[in-house]
Amino acid sequence: MRAAFYISDGTAITSEVFGHALLSLFPTEFEHFTIPFVESHEKAEMVKQEINKTFRRTGEPPLVFHTFVNPEIREIIDSCDGIIYNFLEHFVAPLEQQLQLEAKPKAHRTHSIHENNYDYRIDAVNYALANDDGSNVSNYEHADVILVGVSRSGKTPSSLYLALQYGIKAANYPFTDDDMDELKLPDFLKKNKSKLFGLTIDPQRLMEIRDGRMANSKYASARQCRMEIREVEKLYKKEKIPFLNTTKLSVEEITAKILSATGLQRHKY
Amino acid sequence: MRAAFYISDGTAITSEVFGHALLSLFPTEFEHFTIPFVESHEKAEMVKQEINKTFRRTGEPPLVFHTFVNPEIREIIDSCDGIIYNFLEHFVAPLEQQLQLEAKPKAHRTHSIHENNYDYRIDAVNYALANDDGSNVSNYEHADVILVGVSRSGKTPSSLYLALQYGIKAANYPFTDDDMDELKLPDFLKKNKSKLFGLTIDPQRLMEIRDGRMANSKYASARQCRMEIREVEKLYKKEKIPFLNTTKLSVEEITAKILSATGLQRHKY
Repeated sequence: MRAAFYISDGTAITSEVFGHALLSLFPTEFEHFTIPFVESHEKAEMVKQEINKTFRRTGEPPLVFHTFVNPEIREIIDSCDGIIYNFLEHFVAPLEQQLQLEAKPKAHRTHSIHENNYDYRIDAVNYALANDDGSNVSNYEHADVILVGVSRSGKTPSSLYLALQYGIKAANYPFTDDDMDELKLPDFLKKNKSKLFGLTIDPQRLMEIRDGRMANSKYASARQCRMEIREVEKLYKKEKIPFLNTTKLSVEEITAKILSATGLQRHKY
Repeated sequence: MRAAFYISDGTAITSEVFGHALLSLFPTEFEHFTIPFVESHEKAEMVKQEINKTFRRTGEPPLVFHTFVNPEIREIIDSCDGIIYNFLEHFVAPLEQQLQLEAKPKAHRTHSIHENNYDYRIDAVNYALANDDGSNVSNYEHADVILVGVSRSGKTPSSLYLALQYGIKAANYPFTDDDMDELKLPDFLKKNKSKLFGLTIDPQRLMEIRDGRMANSKYASARQCRMEIREVEKLYKKEKIPFLNTTKLSVEEITAKILSATGLQRHKY
């Protein structure tokens, strides 16, 4: 199996995203190695030896995706037996030309605590945790968005992702069986109606997820799942709450769609 | 201010990471616009008009970072008045050559629910939430890692990030004032010692964070913060628990360092 290395003097998240986007185009498997914080000549030499050893083991030159700022460290990695893919290199010169500005590389420029708005993200995580699953309903005046939906429709992971990645204060509130007789918005949601965003899910998929948690329960029954989904969708339409079916969506896709539908202000790019 | 567009037929996360990594090299500000899920000719035409309008408003051609799979949609975007930076294009041919394989682009290849191990990530988020802040200490046999440290040293955001991004089941356990008289590992931690990873933080920074939450409390006092940090660091050394000072680190950096120090198996690349 071909080996792929993702290497950087920082977290290597950028190298991973870059390499992964490219390799995902190819219908084959790779062996992945991430090596972050390569900040010294010694460490770079060790990484180079590691790449060369992998070449000898696999018989094929490893693919090396890297984003280095320090040119001396980069040169050590560039001199390994792997195939180097350096996306910064290709694009910096045309961007300098276009912007009429010289690039000023410095280490830890992305994914660091020095990024603007880092504190927003940590505050938002604390907010999302404190306001998960309907706890703290008196706190919604501070929310940027309130996700609503039945149990296991994707509210919690989406709230946490909005907070961690984008610094958005996302609360979430569940509609439960007790609400279903005459489903309507409780006052604390009505007061914050412009912040509501509904999630829904296909009843069949909801059943599967709930059955994994509580097999053979009323909670996981076909009738209950169908009823709950029918009622919340009716409510969303009646109250004109924007909503999204999460059945086939990842948490990244759900949150991208919420951001795009609501125009919420992000605190991170 | 120069405008930058991040556009894709998927979440546009890859375009954002790519564009952000490049633009962060330049000592200037940009106006950012992310447009995900551009999946139809109509939507692509609207986006093109939006880019052209932005050009007229700002007087400078917007920078356009995109990752499209469908060539017809890509061509519509490519025909806008912005400057196109397409990193896939530059690297696909050399990779095809190297792998002796033809690229088979398909939509939603990254950041989608169809990625391997997506369910691991959702299970891990549920695990991290259920095992946050010392709740559920009987559950540690299922943990991949248990972060320990004093209150506000970064355990909770790090656990959630490990779960959401990497599908790692991260529990976390706080050492509190009550533990400090004779700090030692409780039995439920001793039994899982190989899973422990300690966080620490400079007392001054800890004071600032705690003061933001509970001003003028004993909890936030210099003496208390210094004492707690001294005690936990002593414990880490005595028990040979690997540990990390989080003072100047983002959650991305903390988790990258934990992964690299522990060799934990990730469920996502």
